[in-house]
Amino acid sequence: MSKGLTSRNEDYSQWYNELVTKADLAEHSAVRGCMVIKPYGYSIWEKMQAALDKMFKDTGHSNAYFPLFIPKSFFSKEASHVEGFATECAVVTHYRLKNDGNGNIIVDEDAKLEEELIVRPTSETIIWNTYRGWIQSYRDLPILVNQWANVVRWEMRTRLFLRTAEFLWQEGHTAHATKEEAIEETERMLDVYATFAEEFMAVPVIRGKKTETERFAGALDTYCIEALMQDGKALQAGTSHFLGQNFAKAFDVKFTSKEGKLDYVWATSWGVSTRLMGALVMAHSDDAGLVLPPKLAPIQVVIVPIYKGDEERAKISEVADGIVAGLKARNISVKYDDRDTQRPGFKFAEYELKGVPVRIAMGGRDLENGTVEIARRDTKEKQTISREGLEEHISALLDEIQQNIYNKALALRNEKTTEVNSYDEFKQVLDTKGGFISAHWDGTPETEKKIKEETKATIRCIPLNNKQEEGACILTGKPSSQRVLFARAY
Amino acid sequence: MSKGLTSRNEDYSQWYNELVTKADLAEHSAVRGCMVIKPYGYSIWEKMQAALDKMFKDTGHSNAYFPLFIPKSFFSKEASHVEGFATECAVVTHYRLKNDGNGNIIVDEDAKLEEELIVRPTSETIIWNTYRGWIQSYRDLPILVNQWANVVRWEMRTRLFLRTAEFLWQEGHTAHATKEEAIEETERMLDVYATFAEEFMAVPVIRGKKTETERFAGALDTYCIEALMQDGKALQAGTSHFLGQNFAKAFDVKFTSKEGKLDYVWATSWGVSTRLMGALVMAHSDDAGLVLPPKLAPIQVVIVPIYKGDEERAKISEVADGIVAGLKARNISVKYDDRDTQRPGFKFAEYELKGVPVRIAMGGRDLENGTVEIARRDTKEKQTISREGLEEHISALLDEIQQNIYNKALALRNEKTTEVNSYDEFKQVLDTKGGFISAHWDGTPETEKKIKEETKATIRCIPLNNKQEEGACILTGKPSSQRVLFARAY
Repeated sequence: MSKGLTSRNEDYSQWYNELVTKADLAEHSAVRGCMVIKPYGYSIWEKMQAALDKMFKDTGHSNAYFPLFIPKSFFSKEASHVEGFATECAVVTHYRLKNDGNGNIIVDEDAKLEEELIVRPTSETIIWNTYRGWIQSYRDLPILVNQWANVVRWEMRTRLFLRTAEFLWQEGHTAHATKEEAIEETERMLDVYATFAEEFMAVPVIRGKKTETERFAGALDTYCIEALMQDGKALQAGTSHFLGQNFAKAFDVKFTSKEGKLDYVWATSWGVSTRLMGALVMAHSDDAGLVLPPKLAPIQVVIVPIYKGDEERAKISEVADGIVAGLKARNISVKYDDRDTQRPGFKFAEYELKGVPVRIAMGGRDLENGTVEIARRDTKEKQTISREGLEEHISALLDEIQQNIYNKALALRNEKTTEVNSYDEFKQVLDTKGGFISAHWDGTPETEKKIKEETKATIRCIPLNNKQEEGACILTGKPSSQRVLFARAY
Repeated sequence: MSKGLTSRNEDYSQWYNELVTKADLAEHSAVRGCMVIKPYGYSIWEKMQAALDKMFKDTGHSNAYFPLFIPKSFFSKEASHVEGFATECAVVTHYRLKNDGNGNIIVDEDAKLEEELIVRPTSETIIWNTYRGWIQSYRDLPILVNQWANVVRWEMRTRLFLRTAEFLWQEGHTAHATKEEAIEETERMLDVYATFAEEFMAVPVIRGKKTETERFAGALDTYCIEALMQDGKALQAGTSHFLGQNFAKAFDVKFTSKEGKLDYVWATSWGVSTRLMGALVMAHSDDAGLVLPPKLAPIQVVIVPIYKGDEERAKISEVADGIVAGLKARNISVKYDDRDTQRPGFKFAEYELKGVPVRIAMGGRDLENGTVEIARRDTKEKQTISREGLEEHISALLDEIQQNIYNKALALRNEKTTEVNSYDEFKQVLDTKGGFISAHWDGTPETEKKIKEETKATIRCIPLNNKQEEGACILTGKPSSQRVLFARAY
């Protein structure tokens, strides 16, 4: 609270780092690449979890838990999978420490594992090895399972929430009797993610498919939702994979169909992670701090009394208690901050930093007039209104804020989405305006790679229900039947 | 479902293993000592988590998340702590795999960590290292934080839920300005655990303190709740530790008091784990399967139709739908099982195995008479009652079952708690009746150790508010001022 944040214009990246730390969301830990998620940050994640978990259960899924460790040999069974993850695995090789006799604690070489264990970077292999025992016939299908877990991917360059060696996520793993059913599930879960992003996070997203290059290691098709941050960079906010029969084949998971035929099982997997916290921060927040959508704000309303002396304080508190009770009855989370160790101005700045959507201030004159002052975090507008009907007003205001934050993010995305028809135009837009660039591409990994090497822009996705349109690839001039979305990305 | 369970009398241990597997609670994984918690088992754990999490929050705690990995050097900082955990640590030594050129995936020796990382067996060290940055003055205290996490302790002999290399738990870690406050917190959380065990799990527990020998590595005092299983063995169901200033000293965490004095911070930690699932199973279940207390049962009521032909089935379904709606309106979880692939008898056995507290069966005659047949899982009593007021009846019945399961466990514990006054009597009771044995002990670790070596019985706890009573140690005859509780334990 001692000094303000670096502004977004000055240094967006620095602004993000400072905000995450100062707003008590997370901090770097003593372990390289691993973060500590602080209570305020974790309480936002809990709200995300609760909303997502309900959506998973409403679509028929159950939670389960699979081991943290994966035997190295499992990894090697699906060729493209191991290739995708081998270079970033934490490997457990021993199971004991000992005292070396000089008071130093060292690894006990006598306790070396016969086979190394990998700390899961994702759980397809251990789960499909387990599913083999669960599936005999079509009657055992579908299996619709999710797990909330920590995973580890040894990233060399890490950033709080966006890219950390350990992160929290959920991973759904489903098994189906038919290809069609598995694809339907893949698309259903993408819809769930998109709905969550838009309705809870207030972040508009593009639903699309990844190109072959950007696919999940082991998937036949990777669907994704892509969001745009205020600095014009894209962020992949969730993925849903159609895995075909790849993992069933690698782990020999077969079932007997209704017709008595033996076939491999069809699979999907889908996940979102604490990365969403980074997206939430970067999509909405401003130079004064977090701007949280009311549906994910741990504190939706804060009441700050402005008083002279104990008598006035007591009178204000009495009124405030009534407001607190009224708001709680409407399931609005509210905090009354009557700490006398801090001045109102300090508190105002603190709750702005923390992104509390609505602030109510009440002083001596308000007491006389039966009013309160309301300030909304998103627009910073203030308004003095009657205490009469205050709860209804706040309730409607929270809805309005949720919608306004979404609209603002949508307007930004629309403004920062550009159609280009030449490579020069492409590079110019990328370096000035940024954002999503809709352009023709010849469909080859070679062109995709070359554009990435030259511009650092990647194909974020081929939007679903994409308009078919004849055109020429911006790089090669070869024919193309549709535009794809490029951007520089987190 | 193909054949019944081994009976408890025949082989209690075998009965437990079969039940956990057949009731779809958990199974062994391909990773030594690690289990897969299956959806049905996990849904019980989720209910436990929800109840506990609410109790933690109601007592002022927030959740947070700390890294999975702990640098080896942190471990060594608190001497007794490292001694307690060093022999059972999973150690990460490398961060990359590679292809050896012959198609084999091997550990990349070029990616060796400078300092090994320990997979957390508990998080005191990494958390207190973090708290150093969070605490400057008394204004920053108390810190009341909990985390839900997975931990790893390399156990050589594992049993599903009771003792596994990886398990799920919560660990509270609090920081206080005074010793008194920290002790108060330690006792408060023991109370929370006891209340949870008794009111939700329907398992009566003894609240007590551990002897010095049985204390948590690094604690000044370990409080515990001890439960008795049906086979007369005790099970430690939760612990709450007063850590004094041990970890604050090891990690140099000081604060400035109100009086401006610099002092080390006082600490507590407390945890319960998926071990509670084992306790739940062993405390109540019978030879037909699980007996779940209604408050933790994922399905509280199941409705099974008994019909001849589609017409009768449709009529029954119509009535059943009404009952389902009525029960759901009362927040009772209910499943209507009209699968036509299984006969009613099969379904009855399945829900008995799964421990569903109340079964409603409805056939053609019930339809005519406006009745249903109700069977309760705990006593297996059946009753035909009118559909009129059924929801109220079920609601009251669930409460009654919850209470009855508790009463039954309490009666068993009372019956299996014996006061003895000689070592012969002690050994005889231990080998015949088992259970808790209340006996005088001279207070020395040597005596405790000798008794353990000779009988495999340990001092489970010194009960809180223990009656002071002059007596003689059963082993040494030395004077003792109070009885302690011995038992063989899980």
